[in-house]
Amino acid sequence: MSLLLSMIQETTATVDIAAEVEKINGDMGMLWMLLAGILVFFMQAGFFLVESGMTDSKNAVNIAMKNFLDIAVGSLAFWFVGYSLMYGSDAFMGVFHWSGFTFSQGAADLFFQTVFAATAATIVSGAIAGRTKYTTYAIFSIVVTAIIYPIAGGWEWNGGWLNNTDGIMPAEFIDFAGSSIVHSVGGWAALVAAWMVGPRIGKYLDGKPVEMHGHNQMYATLGVFILWLGWFGFNGGSQLAWGGDDAVAASQVVLVTNLAASAGAIAALVFTWIKNGKPNLGMTLNGALAGLVSITAGCGNMTESGSVLAGLIGGILVVLSIGFIEKTLKIDDAVGAISVHGVAGAWGTLAIGLWGVDGDKGIGIFNGGGAAQLGAQAIGVVAYAVWAIVLSFVFLYIIKVIFGGLRVTEEEEIQGLDISEHGSIAYPGKRVREIE
Amino acid sequence: MSLLLSMIQETTATVDIAAEVEKINGDMGMLWMLLAGILVFFMQAGFFLVESGMTDSKNAVNIAMKNFLDIAVGSLAFWFVGYSLMYGSDAFMGVFHWSGFTFSQGAADLFFQTVFAATAATIVSGAIAGRTKYTTYAIFSIVVTAIIYPIAGGWEWNGGWLNNTDGIMPAEFIDFAGSSIVHSVGGWAALVAAWMVGPRIGKYLDGKPVEMHGHNQMYATLGVFILWLGWFGFNGGSQLAWGGDDAVAASQVVLVTNLAASAGAIAALVFTWIKNGKPNLGMTLNGALAGLVSITAGCGNMTESGSVLAGLIGGILVVLSIGFIEKTLKIDDAVGAISVHGVAGAWGTLAIGLWGVDGDKGIGIFNGGGAAQLGAQAIGVVAYAVWAIVLSFVFLYIIKVIFGGLRVTEEEEIQGLDISEHGSIAYPGKRVREIE
Amino acid sequence: MSLLLSMIQETTATVDIAAEVEKINGDMGMLWMLLAGILVFFMQAGFFLVESGMTDSKNAVNIAMKNFLDIAVGSLAFWFVGYSLMYGSDAFMGVFHWSGFTFSQGAADLFFQTVFAATAATIVSGAIAGRTKYTTYAIFSIVVTAIIYPIAGGWEWNGGWLNNTDGIMPAEFIDFAGSSIVHSVGGWAALVAAWMVGPRIGKYLDGKPVEMHGHNQMYATLGVFILWLGWFGFNGGSQLAWGGDDAVAASQVVLVTNLAASAGAIAALVFTWIKNGKPNLGMTLNGALAGLVSITAGCGNMTESGSVLAGLIGGILVVLSIGFIEKTLKIDDAVGAISVHGVAGAWGTLAIGLWGVDGDKGIGIFNGGGAAQLGAQAIGVVAYAVWAIVLSFVFLYIIKVIFGGLRVTEEEEIQGLDISEHGSIAYPGKRVREIE
Repeated sequence: MSLLLSMIQETTATVDIAAEVEKINGDMGMLWMLLAGILVFFMQAGFFLVESGMTDSKNAVNIAMKNFLDIAVGSLAFWFVGYSLMYGSDAFMGVFHWSGFTFSQGAADLFFQTVFAATAATIVSGAIAGRTKYTTYAIFSIVVTAIIYPIAGGWEWNGGWLNNTDGIMPAEFIDFAGSSIVHSVGGWAALVAAWMVGPRIGKYLDGKPVEMHGHNQMYATLGVFILWLGWFGFNGGSQLAWGGDDAVAASQVVLVTNLAASAGAIAALVFTWIKNGKPNLGMTLNGALAGLVSITAGCGNMTESGSVLAGLIGGILVVLSIGFIEKTLKIDDAVGAISVHGVAGAWGTLAIGLWGVDGDKGIGIFNGGGAAQLGAQAIGVVAYAVWAIVLSFVFLYIIKVIFGGLRVTEEEEIQGLDISEHGSIAYPGKRVREIE
Repeated sequence: MSLLLSMIQETTATVDIAAEVEKINGDMGMLWMLLAGILVFFMQAGFFLVESGMTDSKNAVNIAMKNFLDIAVGSLAFWFVGYSLMYGSDAFMGVFHWSGFTFSQGAADLFFQTVFAATAATIVSGAIAGRTKYTTYAIFSIVVTAIIYPIAGGWEWNGGWLNNTDGIMPAEFIDFAGSSIVHSVGGWAALVAAWMVGPRIGKYLDGKPVEMHGHNQMYATLGVFILWLGWFGFNGGSQLAWGGDDAVAASQVVLVTNLAASAGAIAALVFTWIKNGKPNLGMTLNGALAGLVSITAGCGNMTESGSVLAGLIGGILVVLSIGFIEKTLKIDDAVGAISVHGVAGAWGTLAIGLWGVDGDKGIGIFNGGGAAQLGAQAIGVVAYAVWAIVLSFVFLYIIKVIFGGLRVTEEEEIQGLDISEHGSIAYPGKRVREIE
Repeated sequence: MSLLLSMIQETTATVDIAAEVEKINGDMGMLWMLLAGILVFFMQAGFFLVESGMTDSKNAVNIAMKNFLDIAVGSLAFWFVGYSLMYGSDAFMGVFHWSGFTFSQGAADLFFQTVFAATAATIVSGAIAGRTKYTTYAIFSIVVTAIIYPIAGGWEWNGGWLNNTDGIMPAEFIDFAGSSIVHSVGGWAALVAAWMVGPRIGKYLDGKPVEMHGHNQMYATLGVFILWLGWFGFNGGSQLAWGGDDAVAASQVVLVTNLAASAGAIAALVFTWIKNGKPNLGMTLNGALAGLVSITAGCGNMTESGSVLAGLIGGILVVLSIGFIEKTLKIDDAVGAISVHGVAGAWGTLAIGLWGVDGDKGIGIFNGGGAAQLGAQAIGVVAYAVWAIVLSFVFLYIIKVIFGGLRVTEEEEIQGLDISEHGSIAYPGKRVREIE
């Protein structure tokens, strides 16, 4: 009797251990996700600095105001609608958020997903800098965080059609932290927006692109450092857990993220050095970002050397793509956002099909896997491109019709959006004369 | 005998589990507090950027030097005296710090509390920018971190009179992370200081306020992003623990902090848009900060929707308050610190009495609670206001008498504090001519 | 039989607890190291801001490009070669990194060590700003991260000759986070480089140093705040673990790091105030950094008051040293890097021999320890100085010969490296006229 009791109690003790460990792992996972989310939040400051630094000072206040919209309206819109659309089993889950009920169990997750949504929105802002109405941007920013991004995200991260092989998928689509889901969606939306808004006045002279300098490369540099920093949270936090294998995996994700960013920066630096005779800062910055975007899909499925290779190619691709979009497509992307997020995002997604691994077995062609994974990756890339392009076009068209155009007047554009849209300038009391 | 032994051992094992889990939770809590403290430290950089960006470039070095004082002198003063005053059972505990004894058990806590004290001090700096002597500021900064803030903090966070219902309190005062204790105390000290120092030369023309532009809205924007980031540590870290319910609660705190900041930013943005015809960057920045201050007291006691509402109202209040202080009170607050920290701090503290919750039961009037909590909140708000105003006045008066005035000479002010007080300028080699 | 089974099972349960706790502590340690590494990564942005702010705007793009090299090439070089040299039992361990094999177990550690190596490299960049060829810098940066730093690091952190008393060491050399290993090595390399490159044109007039202003003290200030922030990871993460005593120890490390930085800033502020009549921002910034470097060796072995003292002396030393190097040695260190990292690094390492403690017993002379520890510290300081100076000289000499000099032409230097080396400027579209 006593013996039986003892055995039962002891079994309970053993069970306790497993349960307690699981609880602790859950708590560590929550800590990591929360901190990762905080890092991703900081990326907004990075985007602000990159976009304002790479564009004219007469539009810098406007950039700041757009970035505030992205995080502020984005946070509210994603909380109110987007999160439910993305992760809900039904579309009405959002109701619980704005009604009195507090959805506290998943606070760390909701926060983490919110800053992801704001990232998707903010990508558009830089591409169409210098000529877009604040009102039209504001509405499109809400549309991206509340509708376009969440539904696209659900396809993969809520176990949607891309994530299982019941339908047309030859293999499960892999996009660990969102090369396609976040960055390409943002990049393709930026493509449509930049095309519909049209180039800045003076960008094309006799059909040839004119280089329009930013106003502060120091901001742009600081911004890229902040983005690189935040990306450790973006990619690493996408492990969504810590403890045991997850701790090792998330650390590896951070390591390969850093390697790919480094490789992207070096690739663009060396490539422009060879191409133009001098290593170029702007392209090095975009190369680092392209390296980061390139590893965002595969950071959970690539070896260290595979990551370096993905980043290297991303860093070269971005230089070529910026030239192609500017010269051949004649689309004016003020900061290179389409190339950095759209093109490098697509590349990073496809690369998994080339040299991705999954545990010990390769899923990429060059790692011993078959073509199925590459096919799945290609389907995902195309699906996200089509989705983002079509929806962006439809919504921007509606906005254009309602508000009588997406763009400010010629006079306002020449004067600068800071004065015309916001009635203030970035550097008051310092109205300096440009010489030479 | 063996059986008995077995049962004893097994009981020990069971006990071990609970003890080990508690230890691990303690370690996770220490990790969270340390990281949160590191985030709060970074807020100093945010204050520096906001204050220097929102004021004239001829006083920017002075702002930097004041912010260094706040963190450097503040860290030493709080370690040497303040922490003992705030959390000690006796006032001599501080002795242990500067004597050889290392108070290592609470290192994470001491660090966390130190950066809070530095925050209280730094709030004053912006309000009185552009005309205050460095010496007088330095001494007042020490007074705030060593005396004014710590004693005020102990009333609530060391189980003082506000925290129990033995005395006059109708309910326990609630101020989770310091809307009143840190921000209002700093804000009211700023009010007294700005009033005693007097307005900047040229601020009032025939009794009417003249807008005195800052010199770099990009700094101000980056500063607000950094403050927003640091606030996740400020509020979230105030849970003072991690593991189990604490992990969920701290995550929820971060989530509602982000929502309130977003709501504050949007409220100020839309409000100035309606009021002035254009959405204003400076006010949007202050709106975000007001949203953050507004949720600092209630972030542990508000639903998500309640937080959004608190932030929204805070964002509107700050716009109205800045106008009122400038036009009606004729007090020159160079960056809006009194409104952001004092007024929004008081509002956030009171809001708990309106729609605060505590677990499942409401403590706010609109959430089914009675008026007792609102009364307790009001007592706290008034107590902190009276304390900060009276002590600031007394100390500033003493400093004024000893140093022959709080203010630099008219000539020095016109020349700029950077040259007169520090012998250098913010942008050397770039003495640009202002045109137009 | 059943009883025996019970006892065996129960013993297993007990064992499980210890094993599980160890695993969890390991996971927490990995989390802390990863986050600390992320903080250290951010120091690159701080170095970029300090170095560009403290030097001329015509070389700011070049500074940005050098900092990108440091982190990007540094990350790849340390991953490819350096880490193996530093921590490998054999020199071929690195092979595993670039071959397909993923060294995932130690990802957090490899990442942490990588950002340390990048720090050592970046120290050199500021000292030789404004006149060094980009090519020669690039190669030297690789040499530092791939060879000079890793071998030096292994002497101590991989259980090398400095870390044990089998050889000439009177006691084990102590350098907790790298006052000598990282900072002095970087600082002495900077000394050799600055000496070999020679002073900037116009730095010496009739043999007397001319003050050459930086272009943006706001950048420098923000940079120091970021470095201070990152240093919490640099020093705290060097505990290399979390959980139990490690959590307490790492928290204490962060606390004393903050105290020493504060003391260094205040010391330099007050010292320049007394010396020159006005408190100087540039020196306050360097004082804070010197305080940080001064506690980097001893942050695991000093009381709080000992740390304050180490920082105070470091803050004064840096002011004196900058004058000495500039006036007496006539070496042009554009940002004071030799003094901040080399001199304060040596001082911090020696200070352990004066008032270091180890648990309850003193190892410093003034804390009851004998002279053996001071001797060990001195040997380490000298060893790292000799190593860094000799190897830097040899490598820079080789680079000089191969590339026909380390320095750009006189014309290029006057024009600025941004245009001559990179074909772009930091503030395009804002070519302002300097007046007065």
